[in-house]
Amino acid sequence: MEPTGAAAVIIGNEVLTAKVVDANGPHLIRRLREVGVPLRSLEIVPDEVDVIVEAVARARLRAKYVFTSGGIGPTHDDVTVRAVALAMGRKVVRLPEMVELVRTKAMDSLTDEALRLADAPEGAVLIHQPGIWYPVLTVEDVFMLPGVPQLFRMQLESVLARMQGTPVHLRVLYLGLGESAVAAVLDRVALDMPHVAIGSYPMFDPALDYLVKVTVESVEKAAVEDAVARLQTGLPAGSVVRTE
Amino acid sequence: MEPTGAAAVIIGNEVLTAKVVDANGPHLIRRLREVGVPLRSLEIVPDEVDVIVEAVARARLRAKYVFTSGGIGPTHDDVTVRAVALAMGRKVVRLPEMVELVRTKAMDSLTDEALRLADAPEGAVLIHQPGIWYPVLTVEDVFMLPGVPQLFRMQLESVLARMQGTPVHLRVLYLGLGESAVAAVLDRVALDMPHVAIGSYPMFDPALDYLVKVTVESVEKAAVEDAVARLQTGLPAGSVVRTE
Repeated sequence: MEPTGAAAVIIGNEVLTAKVVDANGPHLIRRLREVGVPLRSLEIVPDEVDVIVEAVARARLRAKYVFTSGGIGPTHDDVTVRAVALAMGRKVVRLPEMVELVRTKAMDSLTDEALRLADAPEGAVLIHQPGIWYPVLTVEDVFMLPGVPQLFRMQLESVLARMQGTPVHLRVLYLGLGESAVAAVLDRVALDMPHVAIGSYPMFDPALDYLVKVTVESVEKAAVEDAVARLQTGLPAGSVVRTE
Repeated sequence: MEPTGAAAVIIGNEVLTAKVVDANGPHLIRRLREVGVPLRSLEIVPDEVDVIVEAVARARLRAKYVFTSGGIGPTHDDVTVRAVALAMGRKVVRLPEMVELVRTKAMDSLTDEALRLADAPEGAVLIHQPGIWYPVLTVEDVFMLPGVPQLFRMQLESVLARMQGTPVHLRVLYLGLGESAVAAVLDRVALDMPHVAIGSYPMFDPALDYLVKVTVESVEKAAVEDAVARLQTGLPAGSVVRTE
């Protein structure tokens, strides 16, 4: 089966060592949900070529679209381009179009290291966008976004504008009983309706008026309503505090 | 080489679908850094047995300690115990000690589903702790923590209290030049001192008085100071705005 949806690889020693809290992962998760592209997985890995190669290769098996964050730039720790090329069995080449962009940007302070920004996996395509000189570097459906949050967000929007998502329908049931008391009913409905995703989340906050939050979702609205109706029928009388 | 450090697997459809923002990953990252246990990777995966099995197996190759978050409980979406058992080639067994705990907790409302909380990979060990009836479920160095943030944090502390970390020494240089202008010097020092981790982070905030933040770290303090001295010598005069 052809993979669908998206997978993300966050390249970030700085995240894994708690020097910064990753903002790109949560932002990507939220935006993909909003446009209706399901996210299969998100992995945070160090700035090490072999680990990134494996993560990107795995992401490509899991999902149609792969987003990487970080490791783009002219310094020694910017290894994403090399890793993505390896993961896809491609050479790294210097793109003449990017060389021109880097030259124009750098003007009279051009260094050899600056030209590393013009390197890309062979066959890469540049998505140009207003407001930022550096285009989105993409090869097949792998989008190599920069780690700097402002740039990541700007480039992400250029990519998302080209995607066609499928909105998800979500209903929520708030239950006044604990998970152990409702698990058998949830089991049965989840088993009967494998195309509907049912999640059960216990809460341990005495300030809340419920003990368990149950989420029911699918791209098919009718299936969601059917599952909610089955749950309401099966659950012990009075256990549903409210629904959303 | 025997793996060291830690790796994390966050089991969470609710995170990948943007229904909640993961708090456990960032908390774990911060606490591991504080106690000096290096984190090798963090992966967020859906509540699917096969994907979790692969992620846990991979985490065990990368790191000595593996933390999972979520998927612990009595409902159909709680598949972590089964997945960890599969990843480690063990059977799932019902632990008599846990059966007693669940019985005591549930009192007269014990259900078959509640007893699922007593299932664990064969050979699992329970770490008991004050203030919470549910012990930390652990097998070898895999710690299966619950996804509910309050419980995750409490159980994490019980685990960390048993670990011996190595604090990391960190110095930071703030530079007034862009990455392309300093990349050659960073390259050279990074290549000469592979046991020191050097990170380079461009900033695009005009309110800041620097353009690039360079981090230098190692468990050896002298190596960090040596690398900082080499960088200060090699970098263009006046490019270091300040150090920390």
